[in-house]
Amino acid sequence: MKHFDAPILDWNYANQHDWCCEHSMSQSPIDIDTSTLEPMMDMGKLQLTYSRTVDTIFDTGSAIQGLATGTANINNRFFNLQQFHFHTHSEHKIDGKLSDAELHFVHEAQNGRLAVLGVFLIEGAHNETLQTLLDAVNTNKSIHNVYLYDLLPKISDYYHYLGSLTTPPLTENVEWYLFKETVEISAKQIQTLKHFHANNARHTQPLNGRKVLFKSFNKNS
Amino acid sequence: MKHFDAPILDWNYANQHDWCCEHSMSQSPIDIDTSTLEPMMDMGKLQLTYSRTVDTIFDTGSAIQGLATGTANINNRFFNLQQFHFHTHSEHKIDGKLSDAELHFVHEAQNGRLAVLGVFLIEGAHNETLQTLLDAVNTNKSIHNVYLYDLLPKISDYYHYLGSLTTPPLTENVEWYLFKETVEISAKQIQTLKHFHANNARHTQPLNGRKVLFKSFNKNS
Repeated sequence: MKHFDAPILDWNYANQHDWCCEHSMSQSPIDIDTSTLEPMMDMGKLQLTYSRTVDTIFDTGSAIQGLATGTANINNRFFNLQQFHFHTHSEHKIDGKLSDAELHFVHEAQNGRLAVLGVFLIEGAHNETLQTLLDAVNTNKSIHNVYLYDLLPKISDYYHYLGSLTTPPLTENVEWYLFKETVEISAKQIQTLKHFHANNARHTQPLNGRKVLFKSFNKNS
Repeated sequence: MKHFDAPILDWNYANQHDWCCEHSMSQSPIDIDTSTLEPMMDMGKLQLTYSRTVDTIFDTGSAIQGLATGTANINNRFFNLQQFHFHTHSEHKIDGKLSDAELHFVHEAQNGRLAVLGVFLIEGAHNETLQTLLDAVNTNKSIHNVYLYDLLPKISDYYHYLGSLTTPPLTENVEWYLFKETVEISAKQIQTLKHFHANNARHTQPLNGRKVLFKSFNKNS
């Protein structure tokens, strides 16, 4: 990713209005090849403080999206929670494999940097918090006593890379943190999500030389 | 910068190959309007550990560039120094005003994130460290006992925003940290820099809604 070492093409300061710009070289989602991960050297700690009230949850036309407030301290920087939403099936792949669904918590830092925490949802036990949310879709009501952490895994080891939003405007400058541990939701809940959007998942995009890091908080690993 | 709140245009998952991508909305350099700065809330500490050896310094055809190793701990994340180079006159403006020259220390984090520390150089006292570097340009020799900190201001208060490289490929995803305090170099040294490149400065680019933060380490401010 040493872009500044790229060969100098036919440009100079006089023709700078014609300089070509990079286009979409760091897009999301991606297929994560776990054989090529690099251990993340930064501390990489995640501390989430999400409100227990979801202000509203609705169908945007592209996804079921909830609005809630909260902060995420990610690797020692503060981000504000903006919204969370669901994709069925998952957008990211792990070693070529999709999950049943993927939940994205979207955050923005003071400088405009975006960070998304991604959770892979797989068929298994019923998730009561998800059910509370699903029952409230498009009711235009606030939902209280929602423990969003029930939609996050217990172990916070994650894959990290730099990418983009996965829907237009596909803004780059997005930090991705995808939890390795999956969260179970029931087959019926997957069907409910699919009832709204059977396939709201962007195709995986080329890595173009980006590194994917893995952060493990297990001191023995 | 709430890109994810942008109005949904005429797109869907079936036409995703045709989704248009954002193009160059976060470019550098910019003209920093100090009346609109926002105080940076993150700790934002900078800790630089640069080698005292500059491996080589040469004219790339676009700038005088030095190669040296080192690390920068920026807001609690580690970045590796890749190179440093000079622009005459400055690329960034402060309240519409250019400086005589601008020095960029370019760093890369493990995840590929770029961070540039920028120093505004103005006409004043002779700078011995700069002279050592200028005398070595294109000699293809390593330079030892170079104290690069002499080219950095004593007070590390800075302007911060998200931008791009200022030369092709104009890669975005770049964190900018521009020191408020200037560093003096002599009129003769400015002439030497201009002898190599009389005007290797990109025009300032539109802010497009980006925030510019200001970090002050003065507890009384």
